[in-house]
Amino acid sequence: DFPSPGVLFRDISPMLKDPVAFKAAIDLLESYIRASHKNIDYIAGLDSRGFLFGPVLAQRLGVGFLLIRKKGKLPGATEAISYALEYGKAELEVQKDAVEPGQKVIIVDDLLATGGTMRAACELMTKLQADILDCLVLIELSFLKGVEALKPFPLYSLLQYH
Amino acid sequence: DFPSPGVLFRDISPMLKDPVAFKAAIDLLESYIRASHKNIDYIAGLDSRGFLFGPVLAQRLGVGFLLIRKKGKLPGATEAISYALEYGKAELEVQKDAVEPGQKVIIVDDLLATGGTMRAACELMTKLQADILDCLVLIELSFLKGVEALKPFPLYSLLQYH
Repeated sequence: DFPSPGVLFRDISPMLKDPVAFKAAIDLLESYIRASHKNIDYIAGLDSRGFLFGPVLAQRLGVGFLLIRKKGKLPGATEAISYALEYGKAELEVQKDAVEPGQKVIIVDDLLATGGTMRAACELMTKLQADILDCLVLIELSFLKGVEALKPFPLYSLLQYH
Repeated sequence: DFPSPGVLFRDISPMLKDPVAFKAAIDLLESYIRASHKNIDYIAGLDSRGFLFGPVLAQRLGVGFLLIRKKGKLPGATEAISYALEYGKAELEVQKDAVEPGQKVIIVDDLLATGGTMRAACELMTKLQADILDCLVLIELSFLKGVEALKPFPLYSLLQYH
């Protein structure tokens, strides 16, 4: 019943509270990345729950972290993209100098539902001519078919709810 | 000139982009914590830039991470506190079962300005009978005297702008 009646919300708080569980999730994501991608330039995290995982992964991998934020939060010259939500619209922003053309980026968030936000993030980074290596989430609500909405951008999820 | 003309915004993006600089900042915060506090139960991070540093520190220390969020973002039973902003009001929330009475918590954010948000976070955690060991920020705008507003809660900052 959150954020509205009838919705089954998948809460990551208990995992973050447990350092062993949190470490296990990060270990698995790190192993996947190391096995799948070479020469990563940046991990980018989505505002705001992607910020919980992106910096930890970036530090593990020894690469930098980029912020993909909701509109109006980033100083300096920014590139923006607007996308449809279930009701209304939203906008994501990134600093224009976040990447050089051709730099390799992995985008991280906590959860993939319909895929709209992640797809917008991929398109936004593509506007800056970043090379999107992968999109990573802890949880995929696979019955919402977000992986289809995200194509041709790839997805890796640690846990799927069918 | 962000978020409005005449404001000198301290942007942490370049530090996050540089894995060596980011690691150095985390190393310093970790060293301070280890030298100053024993038996920490949790690192709590403020929505949303505290999420960039809190989980990295919590993993380094082997303790859990708690979310202190803006209103309406957390499922389940929550405790809330409202506080004054320069214009209007804001509200922070935490899950009621986030801590047991007497558990020891360090609160992390990116920056301390007037101290209103950090103070509200301390009072919110105190409502849950947490023991606030410390408040940590990367940047303290010390000319705004947030450290005074925060008393009797303590503050440690890595970098001060006078």
